Amino acid sequence: MNILVTARMKTSFREELVDKFPEANFIFKYPIEEAEPYIPEADVIVTFGEDLTNEHMEKADRLKWIMVVSAGLDEMPFEKIIEKDILVTNARGIHKIQMSEYAIAMLLQVYRNLPQFIENQRKHVYDKRVKIEEISGKTMMVVGTGAIGQETARKAKAFDMKTIGVSRSGAKKDYFDECYKNEELLDKLPEADFVINVLPATPDTEKMFKSEHFKAMKEDAVFLNMGRGTTVDEKEMIEALNNNEIRHAVLDVFEVEPLPEDSPLWDMENVTLTPHNSAITAGYMPRALDIFENNLKQFLNGEKPEINVIDPKRGY
Amino acid sequence: MNILVTARMKTSFREELVDKFPEANFIFKYPIEEAEPYIPEADVIVTFGEDLTNEHMEKADRLKWIMVVSAGLDEMPFEKIIEKDILVTNARGIHKIQMSEYAIAMLLQVYRNLPQFIENQRKHVYDKRVKIEEISGKTMMVVGTGAIGQETARKAKAFDMKTIGVSRSGAKKDYFDECYKNEELLDKLPEADFVINVLPATPDTEKMFKSEHFKAMKEDAVFLNMGRGTTVDEKEMIEALNNNEIRHAVLDVFEVEPLPEDSPLWDMENVTLTPHNSAITAGYMPRALDIFENNLKQFLNGEKPEINVIDPKRGY
Repeated sequence: MNILVTARMKTSFREELVDKFPEANFIFKYPIEEAEPYIPEADVIVTFGEDLTNEHMEKADRLKWIMVVSAGLDEMPFEKIIEKDILVTNARGIHKIQMSEYAIAMLLQVYRNLPQFIENQRKHVYDKRVKIEEISGKTMMVVGTGAIGQETARKAKAFDMKTIGVSRSGAKKDYFDECYKNEELLDKLPEADFVINVLPATPDTEKMFKSEHFKAMKEDAVFLNMGRGTTVDEKEMIEALNNNEIRHAVLDVFEVEPLPEDSPLWDMENVTLTPHNSAITAGYMPRALDIFENNLKQFLNGEKPEINVIDPKRGY
Repeated sequence: MNILVTARMKTSFREELVDKFPEANFIFKYPIEEAEPYIPEADVIVTFGEDLTNEHMEKADRLKWIMVVSAGLDEMPFEKIIEKDILVTNARGIHKIQMSEYAIAMLLQVYRNLPQFIENQRKHVYDKRVKIEEISGKTMMVVGTGAIGQETARKAKAFDMKTIGVSRSGAKKDYFDECYKNEELLDKLPEADFVINVLPATPDTEKMFKSEHFKAMKEDAVFLNMGRGTTVDEKEMIEALNNNEIRHAVLDVFEVEPLPEDSPLWDMENVTLTPHNSAITAGYMPRALDIFENNLKQFLNGEKPEINVIDPKRGY
């Protein structure tokens, strides 16, 4: 039983896996170029989901199962995976704590003007007049009402916000005062002080946020994207920000990643950006491996792993 | 009926008061030097509580009531106030939203390394490896379990923290998993990841946090003071920070305010400081004036204002 791990992880995690599963032969190879020679003999591949291609799958003669220790599956070679009937599981559900903290942290940063206080401390300036606003009592719209969106809404409720959820089905979910369908997004945007985008990248969500959406938002709205960069027309968002159609954008994801050096986003005063790491905390890998280990126990018993099984035809 | 207002407030608030209470003669004078000539004829003084002296009280021949549109009363001239039996009310209870947001914002800032992301954006550096930690699941100790401390604990519970309250009485309060008396502080400090000081300045609380307290904290503890600077031995706290006995201090208050230019705190990498304005948001004055107006209605009816009456002998 060969388990090829292309996901980079700390020595302690690797040692723990080897210790816990002596019956498996773990092969830790990173990056993918190092791992390629081992693909033909791999029974299982553990990956972040960004490095496998259809060509790799073509050569994977023994592969039965791919564990993606991440949630995003938009770069997975599903064509060959379907053809070869390979099982895919992922680590969805382990991002909600970190990412909901990201959303609250960044909204507070914008509303409390934290960069100005940091700058003032650096300059030894004691200025009580720096403007501070409260996020409490505001209206938060969350677009994408899965685990991350719901947890963000749950925390927003502790700040006494009104919460509006938007999703494909429009189904009522916990912690949302109101829920609407994607088709109703444009109608409901004018009500939101904070618009939190947690959309995955699917054909349905591509450029879901366009010029008209930013025009529909409050002039004072803060737009936060921690879903996928492709769900936003970045050029039109930049125009909207340059025209002050909204107040601020907080961006963890971009159309092209890493964000190109010549992107205007870097230097925009009404943009705060982070390098697609809102979910990457010390708590991440232990939670991802917990899911993997439970699935692996079943797999080693000759059963089918059951946690977070993906439908490769839908892509999630 | 002369109402002397030494608290600086926006024109719109002043106009609103004049409109709402045509029977009163409002005299808006700021700073106190401008207000001094009007003290002898004032029936009511509205102040932030930091500008009145016993000498002023000596001259206040008609003064019946002082409304402090703030919560801190440590600079009030209670000696003469008691002697002349002047009623004092304050604006306690209007700080809890902003200050609990401050605590959560600053803990998230430290744990998510936000200054580093701001710096990286400025330098166009896209570095996913900046260390991020989760505040969820940690233990928060709140020293001072009044309205602000309780609201901070309530929000901490939304982040699934364990909350420990410390107060004079040790009485169980909502949103705290455990409550202890001040005498038990030292014993309980080793359990806390976050130590939130919301103590008022009273003879009992003076330098309540000393060297031994910082030594008792976890090496990784974050100490946040949004109470009063005098409740901490600042020199001993600086020593503790220099010796890395704790990880970080977030300070909104100081022994001497404004923080002196030569204070070492300005340049310490494990200190984040703000200029005693954690509570100063746009929501502040409307809430303070709401209390004042309700009390003023009673006062103008010949009754005694009832909201937030202070016992000048206890000082709170």
